[in-house]
Amino acid sequence: MIMKGPGMYPALFFAGGSADRGFCYHGHMIVLFTDFGLNGPYVGQMHAVLAQAAPSQAVVDLFHDVPRCNVRAGAYLLPAFVEPFPESAVFLCIVDPGVGSTRRAVAVRADGRWFVGPDNGLFHVLAKRAVCLDSYEIVWRPARLSSTFHGRDLFAPVAGSLALGMLPESRPAPLTVPDGGAWPDDLAEVVYIDGFGNAFTGLQAQRVGTRRVLQVRGHTLCYADTFSAATRGEAFWYRNSSDLVEIAVNEGSAAEVLGLQLGEPIQIQ
Amino acid sequence: MIMKGPGMYPALFFAGGSADRGFCYHGHMIVLFTDFGLNGPYVGQMHAVLAQAAPSQAVVDLFHDVPRCNVRAGAYLLPAFVEPFPESAVFLCIVDPGVGSTRRAVAVRADGRWFVGPDNGLFHVLAKRAVCLDSYEIVWRPARLSSTFHGRDLFAPVAGSLALGMLPESRPAPLTVPDGGAWPDDLAEVVYIDGFGNAFTGLQAQRVGTRRVLQVRGHTLCYADTFSAATRGEAFWYRNSSDLVEIAVNEGSAAEVLGLQLGEPIQIQ
Amino acid sequence: MIMKGPGMYPALFFAGGSADRGFCYHGHMIVLFTDFGLNGPYVGQMHAVLAQAAPSQAVVDLFHDVPRCNVRAGAYLLPAFVEPFPESAVFLCIVDPGVGSTRRAVAVRADGRWFVGPDNGLFHVLAKRAVCLDSYEIVWRPARLSSTFHGRDLFAPVAGSLALGMLPESRPAPLTVPDGGAWPDDLAEVVYIDGFGNAFTGLQAQRVGTRRVLQVRGHTLCYADTFSAATRGEAFWYRNSSDLVEIAVNEGSAAEVLGLQLGEPIQIQ
Repeated sequence: MIMKGPGMYPALFFAGGSADRGFCYHGHMIVLFTDFGLNGPYVGQMHAVLAQAAPSQAVVDLFHDVPRCNVRAGAYLLPAFVEPFPESAVFLCIVDPGVGSTRRAVAVRADGRWFVGPDNGLFHVLAKRAVCLDSYEIVWRPARLSSTFHGRDLFAPVAGSLALGMLPESRPAPLTVPDGGAWPDDLAEVVYIDGFGNAFTGLQAQRVGTRRVLQVRGHTLCYADTFSAATRGEAFWYRNSSDLVEIAVNEGSAAEVLGLQLGEPIQIQ
Repeated sequence: MIMKGPGMYPALFFAGGSADRGFCYHGHMIVLFTDFGLNGPYVGQMHAVLAQAAPSQAVVDLFHDVPRCNVRAGAYLLPAFVEPFPESAVFLCIVDPGVGSTRRAVAVRADGRWFVGPDNGLFHVLAKRAVCLDSYEIVWRPARLSSTFHGRDLFAPVAGSLALGMLPESRPAPLTVPDGGAWPDDLAEVVYIDGFGNAFTGLQAQRVGTRRVLQVRGHTLCYADTFSAATRGEAFWYRNSSDLVEIAVNEGSAAEVLGLQLGEPIQIQ
Repeated sequence: MIMKGPGMYPALFFAGGSADRGFCYHGHMIVLFTDFGLNGPYVGQMHAVLAQAAPSQAVVDLFHDVPRCNVRAGAYLLPAFVEPFPESAVFLCIVDPGVGSTRRAVAVRADGRWFVGPDNGLFHVLAKRAVCLDSYEIVWRPARLSSTFHGRDLFAPVAGSLALGMLPESRPAPLTVPDGGAWPDDLAEVVYIDGFGNAFTGLQAQRVGTRRVLQVRGHTLCYADTFSAATRGEAFWYRNSSDLVEIAVNEGSAAEVLGLQLGEPIQIQ
């Protein structure tokens, strides 16, 4: 799975990395962001490839339950979780309902960090918000490429290579605009429901004043700073720990209490 | 997330660690014990902080499905899983329904091992059973502290620092006694139901003679050494691999067969 | 958990490994394949033992939801996932309904790779397909052996030791044939249903021509190269990324649409 040949770019991406911080962690952390779910062999097979392609790099499982095949939800979740990671991190992002079709494979460098995955809109929101952006179509192909698991066969080796400072054979290319045109900067919809029943939206909380009131399925939700600021069983919205507007119920499940589902529209008043 | 300043204690906690055992593992394993569930971005964000704060330390995901917000269940589960870990291990323990309230953050040293988490009773049983105990209120605060995810923002950096041999700014302080007074040494209740339908109790098996009979929901359960010692479909109790009294059914789910739920009381006869 | 004594074989198994590939990864990756599920403390306790027994080895969680206690399903899944791993990998395989009974513990070397686990048929298919095969009964026992968690107490230390190049005290011994006699080379049954509702079978796809038609529960399924080659909602079979015949529905769940369950028989026509 090691990539070679004249198309390989030289290792000049990570000058001044954090290699001096520890024995094993040279700073080029690889971060997984997928819709595979944790069950089955999929995540493990990705780790197996990464452990061989980039043996001394830390690999962090950030998100494996992005709503399945829901590229748009993934596109609004991804940028919310980028910031705490080091600038040298490589994100391996797979929400790829079109695997095996003609959609392209891309590597995106946004504000210093690398993102690898399918060119299907998954990086659209990230790219809109980035100050510095470069994007590349990945031309390199492995010797063996299954038709249904490019995460393992194509994208993981590319991420491993980037973590070692090398971009496999690629050419600069703009990202494809999603079908139906560009998506909005912020998405006033539920994009994820966590195990506590809290509903993440695609709204950046810093852009919504705390005096604003949300309407969802006929319910009116006020802002609260913390869960304990709301009375028991009360629904509210707050700025979550990743700066998304989140809908919650103190000591309860917002999804159940309010009947929320993925894609539920929200009005800001 | 790196902590500095005059409040930092010097690195004298881990003299004689196991740094010579391998290249990457210097012996100060960090062990995660939470109620976050494995889905969502929470566990991954903790790992991201730890990978940066303590890059060369092994991190073990011990338990991420402690019954949600159930501090008391967590308090009886935690000590059962401590023993096989090295004395230099640092446990990062988050069952924290009061996050964002005035509950304190603590670091506890019990029989050599460090435990970091909220001062809400989670370490109460561990402390009762410890021979040597020191506890500290953590005074250090990160530059950015969300109101809902102290696991990531406060406790993970503290655990990372302890794994490097440093306790962030702290002051000696006794643990808070849970509301309603001290909890019993052993808890005759179901505190966890595993994926096989086996029910863990808060009873230390070594303290319950194997001739004793348990009563639960009108059923009488005798002791069996192993699953294969019981007849198929028969409910029994046994000493599980972590020395808790556990209720099981041979080739079946005790939770289903006996209708067990968390908190179910048990009588010892 | 470190094994010593005259029964220990010398470290001559891994001459010419890939120790030169990186700082932390010496090539003797340990791969976990179990039916424990990801919840509860079981997987974490295995990792804790491995982190102490073989601190500098990469550990990959390949599969933790092998159908529970279903040795036969595990036996057909295991060989499908072996190939991408390095020849020096050690597989720690636990599907062990007979734990605590008299079933033996074994270490199997198949075409270079080591496999450790119970001698209950789990390695039967792997062994049938191997060109080079050695099998050993593990005689070594740890100082403390619980009756219900040999994965942690016995098999994990053995795997850790093998990853360091040492086989604990053992004697050459053939594998036990499953009750009822040898299992077929290929199994025309559903052996796993993944989170997308796709059904893995025990059939090696390279041995089934793409012109063949499958019959399952009265439905007739043709071959398709990829998901996008089938019309929406259509059921088909394809060669999955691990070379198993897999039954799927484009943009749907084959398990739901076809009413598939584990063990469902398949006819090849």
